[in-house]
Amino acid sequence: MAAEIVNPCSDSTDQDGGAEPLDSFDPAFALHRGGKMAVQATVPVRNKDDLSLAYTPGVARVCTAIAEQPELVHDYTWTSSVVAVVTDGTAVLGLGDIGPRASLPVMEGKAILFKQFGGVDAVPIALDCTDTDEIVDTVVRLAPSFGGINLEDISAPRCFEIERRLQERLDIPVFHDDQHGTAVVTLAALRNAARLSGRALGDLRAVISGAGAAGVAIARMLVEAGIGDVAVADRKGIVSADREDLTPVKRELASFTNRARLSGSLQDALAGADVFIGVSGGTVPEEAVASMAKGAFVFAMANPDPEVHPDVAHKYAAVVATGRSDFPNQINNVLAFPGIFAGALQVRASRITEGMKLAAAEALAGVVGDDLAADYVIPSPFDERVAPAVTAAVAAAARAEGVARR
Amino acid sequence: MAAEIVNPCSDSTDQDGGAEPLDSFDPAFALHRGGKMAVQATVPVRNKDDLSLAYTPGVARVCTAIAEQPELVHDYTWTSSVVAVVTDGTAVLGLGDIGPRASLPVMEGKAILFKQFGGVDAVPIALDCTDTDEIVDTVVRLAPSFGGINLEDISAPRCFEIERRLQERLDIPVFHDDQHGTAVVTLAALRNAARLSGRALGDLRAVISGAGAAGVAIARMLVEAGIGDVAVADRKGIVSADREDLTPVKRELASFTNRARLSGSLQDALAGADVFIGVSGGTVPEEAVASMAKGAFVFAMANPDPEVHPDVAHKYAAVVATGRSDFPNQINNVLAFPGIFAGALQVRASRITEGMKLAAAEALAGVVGDDLAADYVIPSPFDERVAPAVTAAVAAAARAEGVARR
Repeated sequence: MAAEIVNPCSDSTDQDGGAEPLDSFDPAFALHRGGKMAVQATVPVRNKDDLSLAYTPGVARVCTAIAEQPELVHDYTWTSSVVAVVTDGTAVLGLGDIGPRASLPVMEGKAILFKQFGGVDAVPIALDCTDTDEIVDTVVRLAPSFGGINLEDISAPRCFEIERRLQERLDIPVFHDDQHGTAVVTLAALRNAARLSGRALGDLRAVISGAGAAGVAIARMLVEAGIGDVAVADRKGIVSADREDLTPVKRELASFTNRARLSGSLQDALAGADVFIGVSGGTVPEEAVASMAKGAFVFAMANPDPEVHPDVAHKYAAVVATGRSDFPNQINNVLAFPGIFAGALQVRASRITEGMKLAAAEALAGVVGDDLAADYVIPSPFDERVAPAVTAAVAAAARAEGVARR
Repeated sequence: MAAEIVNPCSDSTDQDGGAEPLDSFDPAFALHRGGKMAVQATVPVRNKDDLSLAYTPGVARVCTAIAEQPELVHDYTWTSSVVAVVTDGTAVLGLGDIGPRASLPVMEGKAILFKQFGGVDAVPIALDCTDTDEIVDTVVRLAPSFGGINLEDISAPRCFEIERRLQERLDIPVFHDDQHGTAVVTLAALRNAARLSGRALGDLRAVISGAGAAGVAIARMLVEAGIGDVAVADRKGIVSADREDLTPVKRELASFTNRARLSGSLQDALAGADVFIGVSGGTVPEEAVASMAKGAFVFAMANPDPEVHPDVAHKYAAVVATGRSDFPNQINNVLAFPGIFAGALQVRASRITEGMKLAAAEALAGVVGDDLAADYVIPSPFDERVAPAVTAAVAAAARAEGVARR
């Protein structure tokens, strides 16, 4: 059978012998050989009759129907279940600007996590351009092939404008995961930490270290969720309206954060603060952690080296979370993005609203339920209740907000 | 297990009830519901350990290695086995300019044929632009994500320039299947028809009806293969150097075809001709077929209505072929493109050369072997010997021509 032809391109032998040593040296290389994903047909093509339905002449009737009734594209193609994972390779993990080709293992990883955890098909699209206009135009042009756009590892501040302009020009979900995925999971963990401590979000003052993609989005989302106050610090200190050196994005950030009108360094902000959220790398000195309010929450999410080591954080904090899988309470985006897109695609949402993200955070927090504890404020990525809960909550929120199209 | 979560987006129920009638009315619609393809992970993501290899932190080591040694991208991502099926939806089947969305069922069909017959992963990329510069720039920008570009259903004459410019700018195979796939299969059938009749290609005079993508490419390939003479007719008659109304592409066509310096209509050209190749639609009158040389070959490839009905053609011709699956000798591109890309990708060819296409045609013709007969000059698409034979021949030709990179 033709169906049994083995892929001639992804054989596991290395014909030129050049790369084998890497594979035996490091299991990550062995696992990555030939890539991590494939395409599969979901309909049979075994004989002439199959071919005449899946391809010519039968396919022509489906094309004609879509030409006459464009919305049928969602019913009769895979577009409504497939997301483009788009990057320009400028801010890949902690590795920085390594370019589109070197970013691909991460994009493939993201694609298989979409599939594994959310049942969403995803295709890596690593772009050979970094200009904002070029990225926007390119994504707009290829958008008819996809049901959603997941922006990934695009450096700040371009990522903000690229996302905003794509959202304006496209009527499908456009979501920068480094911003909003991180923000959703952080908010979920914070909700549960507050619940554990019997405190309301409105009573908490949070400090975020880092004013990049994640820091800005977390700040915005905490304010949306009703946090008492939040201050964001970049390398030069607390982002406040009186600073002269702010980019437009940080100027806007200053307009809705730091109601306490703090100025000075990150350490200054931490004195008496209830929550620390680290998305910057770097190290926070132990005395700064010690200066926080009693029963504080420390979310030190830098990878692989948290801003505060959990052993240190536990001396002072009531709840500690990191970005690492080898400590409890891992803030991991995979808890959010598969379900968020699955929910949005399920109802053919035209966009992902603030309400949908807040609903995702609430659903994610809710999975913890009665098992809530200081070392369990956020579920495991492998908890099979997570994606269905987030999916359902996001779909319902899309309907409630009037952006669902079915 | 998370792995068992059902895709929430491609459910087979129709929640709004709007399209069900189409599905029960026509099995092509029922088969297309939810699309025809999906993405699958080829590595496990069952637990923390899997995740730490396929994603962070393990993936960072693979990214770093590619950043340092860019050619490793071919070993450690799926790019070297995945082809973009790129269209702008301007010349879809016989339907014409139906736009990118309505073209998607064809592009998905193409993608699953790539997989089924060649083991090649393929992703539909239907572009929301028709400007030549914009298409070229867009494809160049997304090229890092793919091992090859299959151009599809882009109208002439833009298709020629788009292909040429992409071939200049990219170092991966760029192949317009409507041109070269059709030409390869036509040449294979013609080779076998000549062998059956004991004639050399150099003794044959061919007439092609249609000077679009397929007609131009077939003419070029027949000349490359050593045909005696070929004349191409468009709607205004035989393409010849003395015509004042030729586009640049047809002017070039005139420079290497029609050595006999024929002028006049298609019917004028057919008088005494040995081969008719129809890639235009329209009808050729029976008296024109009757005027061809004794023992002629009639390849009437228009779909669904051949330019000459096989019943008519058989009155005069020694060998008859069509584009239809319900007559013998179907000229079907699926005989060529899966193996051509599989062979090119297998050796990481930087381009697809004339020699590789000629080798594909020869290998395809060779599959028929000793079973050669008037109603069997070309194998069935479901002959499982086809793709391996074409793949091997193309890979060998790429090596011989110095465009293989492994």
